[in-house]
Amino acid sequence: MRAARRQRARPVSAAPAQAAFPLAIIAGSGEYPPRLASLAAARGHEVYVAAIEGAAQPGDFAPHSVRAYRLGQLGRLLDELKRRGIGDLVMIGALPRPSFGSLLPEPSTLKYLPHFARAFQGGDDHLLKGVVQFFENQGYRVHGPADIAPALTAPLGALGRRQAPTVARAVIEQGFALLAALSPFDVGQAAIVADHRVVAIEAAEGTDAMIKRVAELVASGRLKFARHDGVLVKAPKDGQDLRVDMPAIGPDTLRNLAQAGLSGVALRAGKVLVGDSDRLGKLADELGLFVEGVA
Amino acid sequence: MRAARRQRARPVSAAPAQAAFPLAIIAGSGEYPPRLASLAAARGHEVYVAAIEGAAQPGDFAPHSVRAYRLGQLGRLLDELKRRGIGDLVMIGALPRPSFGSLLPEPSTLKYLPHFARAFQGGDDHLLKGVVQFFENQGYRVHGPADIAPALTAPLGALGRRQAPTVARAVIEQGFALLAALSPFDVGQAAIVADHRVVAIEAAEGTDAMIKRVAELVASGRLKFARHDGVLVKAPKDGQDLRVDMPAIGPDTLRNLAQAGLSGVALRAGKVLVGDSDRLGKLADELGLFVEGVA
Repeated sequence: MRAARRQRARPVSAAPAQAAFPLAIIAGSGEYPPRLASLAAARGHEVYVAAIEGAAQPGDFAPHSVRAYRLGQLGRLLDELKRRGIGDLVMIGALPRPSFGSLLPEPSTLKYLPHFARAFQGGDDHLLKGVVQFFENQGYRVHGPADIAPALTAPLGALGRRQAPTVARAVIEQGFALLAALSPFDVGQAAIVADHRVVAIEAAEGTDAMIKRVAELVASGRLKFARHDGVLVKAPKDGQDLRVDMPAIGPDTLRNLAQAGLSGVALRAGKVLVGDSDRLGKLADELGLFVEGVA
Repeated sequence: MRAARRQRARPVSAAPAQAAFPLAIIAGSGEYPPRLASLAAARGHEVYVAAIEGAAQPGDFAPHSVRAYRLGQLGRLLDELKRRGIGDLVMIGALPRPSFGSLLPEPSTLKYLPHFARAFQGGDDHLLKGVVQFFENQGYRVHGPADIAPALTAPLGALGRRQAPTVARAVIEQGFALLAALSPFDVGQAAIVADHRVVAIEAAEGTDAMIKRVAELVASGRLKFARHDGVLVKAPKDGQDLRVDMPAIGPDTLRNLAQAGLSGVALRAGKVLVGDSDRLGKLADELGLFVEGVA
């Protein structure tokens, strides 16, 4: 047990001491936004949360300053940031497909619409990049969640008691090499390698759907591998803008992995959101999985 | 219409005149084995069909010489090939997971079992390579279906009236480049590119399951692309042994593509089985798809 403990998770990098500038958190859904607010406040930031209506619940952000905004209230948000002297912001959490009503612009928002016309013509990634660019053009610094709160990301080493078995090391490296080879095609945040071969590659379906596909192939007998042989690998694409588009795993990911009979998951340390790594490590232990951050 | 007709399908290569050696066809299920038997006979080969029990129906091979064999009757097959002076063979069609009964070796087969012990320890690909090696070690020449009957494969150009739209050319090249990048990882016979991004990559699930996944993503609104924008690309992996493991598409593939709202399929000409290209071209026309062989 001593050896295992020595190799347990440690932070990816000692984050440099930051000036505790006031920070706006533009918050979508999920558990990450409230956790980011707490971690940012703990580091001395004065936090102001813009909870996107239909995604984030303002009540989840107590005791921080919070207000709900429709997407069409962008002008009001900018006015409030100016009033508060906030020049730094971070975006986190998922947004639902916006309803027509939520987009309906207030008068103070109308003047910004032309900035978004082009961004809306591409895919989701394109739109998010357009949003970052918009805020930057308005003079804001846009930070990544991992910059503000490294503790949200996968640390180096095992999150729970289990480490990746030695035999899985080569498979994990093969998986990361595969993801790197896919990067130029702007696809492939995750893959599943089992029995020394690639059994699933993620594209538009998302990680959870990919894991479920493998579970079904195993259940139907079309795919066989030794228990504790299959590994999920997950990493950002080269050049992915980690300020608005970080890969993430959560408790559901682990439950799906266990159900598919996979052995665990290897994450690119510091570059994949895990939320609360202690809690995720405990869940991994319960489920008999390894979760490991790899440099 | 003239321009379109000028570019219609033509054979990938003028096959060299072959000495019409006697040929054994080891036949699994599907429509390819009977068609290969006819095409081989038309080229002057004296054909002997070994119909694998549980997969091929001997009656489908009239008027050629045919006999049903259980997998455990390998020794009997080899004796018959020797008796007939056949030194060349080709394997085609799918095999079901063998039942215990079908494997039960006859006395004449027992002596060959040690040859297969190692081959059975790997995956399916490994097993097929082991079977090829076994026959080669016994002095047989193992041919690929495409060598015996190039007409079974995708010709160069459009199989039906429709050609890939000009705007799709770049997308198709992107798709083939993606498959080439995956080759070193021994995965990726097919992918779907739509809206200038890769939306699905095939691994263990197979091509049809991948197409259905895209159909579901579209139906659920999670994926959007213009009608006639999405393209399936399919090609063998570099170094894939085309004698026992050729990629293939068929009528079901086209029906699934149409249902998913895809625009068509680009195939590596001469390296993907299409069975009857005229019939497949007609079906493509009915479904409003393009099917095109690309050099």
